[in-house]
Amino acid sequence: MTRQQDELNQRHQTRMQRKKAIIDQHIAAADGKKGLLIVNTGNGKGKSSSAFGMVMRALGHEMQVGVVQFIKGAMSTGEERFLRRFPDEVRFHAMGEGYTWETQDRERDIAKATAAWELVRSFLADPAIGLVVLDELNIALKYGYLDLDTVLADLAKRPPMQHVIITGRGAPQALIDAADTVTEMQAIKHAYQAGIGAQAAIEW
Amino acid sequence: MTRQQDELNQRHQTRMQRKKAIIDQHIAAADGKKGLLIVNTGNGKGKSSSAFGMVMRALGHEMQVGVVQFIKGAMSTGEERFLRRFPDEVRFHAMGEGYTWETQDRERDIAKATAAWELVRSFLADPAIGLVVLDELNIALKYGYLDLDTVLADLAKRPPMQHVIITGRGAPQALIDAADTVTEMQAIKHAYQAGIGAQAAIEW
Repeated sequence: MTRQQDELNQRHQTRMQRKKAIIDQHIAAADGKKGLLIVNTGNGKGKSSSAFGMVMRALGHEMQVGVVQFIKGAMSTGEERFLRRFPDEVRFHAMGEGYTWETQDRERDIAKATAAWELVRSFLADPAIGLVVLDELNIALKYGYLDLDTVLADLAKRPPMQHVIITGRGAPQALIDAADTVTEMQAIKHAYQAGIGAQAAIEW
Repeated sequence: MTRQQDELNQRHQTRMQRKKAIIDQHIAAADGKKGLLIVNTGNGKGKSSSAFGMVMRALGHEMQVGVVQFIKGAMSTGEERFLRRFPDEVRFHAMGEGYTWETQDRERDIAKATAAWELVRSFLADPAIGLVVLDELNIALKYGYLDLDTVLADLAKRPPMQHVIITGRGAPQALIDAADTVTEMQAIKHAYQAGIGAQAAIEW
């Protein structure tokens, strides 16, 4: 090892020791545990897939999971096909019939969303379910298909250790205010803009 | 139904018909298919979990998946425990020993990253693997543990239908330039700031 490399490695070690001290202090300060309300919003990719990644983690920790999809349901998706392999661990319900511009029927969309919320309510009342995914709920809220105050009240009443992840563009401000963790997925660039269509594993 | 509701529903239908026409046009224009290079970066949550959600989708479509974790490896994670259940479908390798401030050893981090990249290369040469996840690769690039030009050249040579997802804060600009889809996960708020620690299913 040259003397220059040796110095570089030494400096790296000193910097990392300092960084570790600061991070350890932050970790020690953040020792609370509770069921989180997580919101993934924005126009970029990864809102739903991030929720399904957390489902995978939850299954790795032997948790029970409930999934309700508010918009998806008209076509079979990879996540659905995969999660149906685990009927004892995952309650999976794709309750939608497609995006609002596909259904073009407001009354029917409202009836579907209302039925889906009844099911969600049963998950939110069950402490055995450790993680609840409400995929594209934000779309149903944005179009006024569900009453936001009712949704917020039901979320607030859930078991204290139950995690909930809500996805979809345009999360309402009151939901952001109520949430513990909110991430905005911002599209820096998207293959779609370069003429690449939706593909298996990527979009569904 | 009141006349007001009826008008609301009619207007909704007209608006959605117009929206569908525009969206269908965009979908028709974006009919290309190819293996995507996807980058998830930014300081918010969901970079790795989104990649694992895509792994779930890929498994639902009976694709073979390769996962290499560059930083994680020191502790068992939910994703690891879950994906090890599928040895025929997923090649899972957690090759790291923790974040740079944990290892504090630059030479050792470089040796680990170099060994991990050798494995990645074998995935990038195998057209049977439909999806490759390079978790926290951006961190290894940021610290100069791997040569960026070599990484970009190896990525460019991969099978044309193979998707690659790269995660981690601070993606280098040249990687963003080479990518098809780039999402910046922005933290709007994080439970950590309110004193909530890392929890199973959420962070690991």
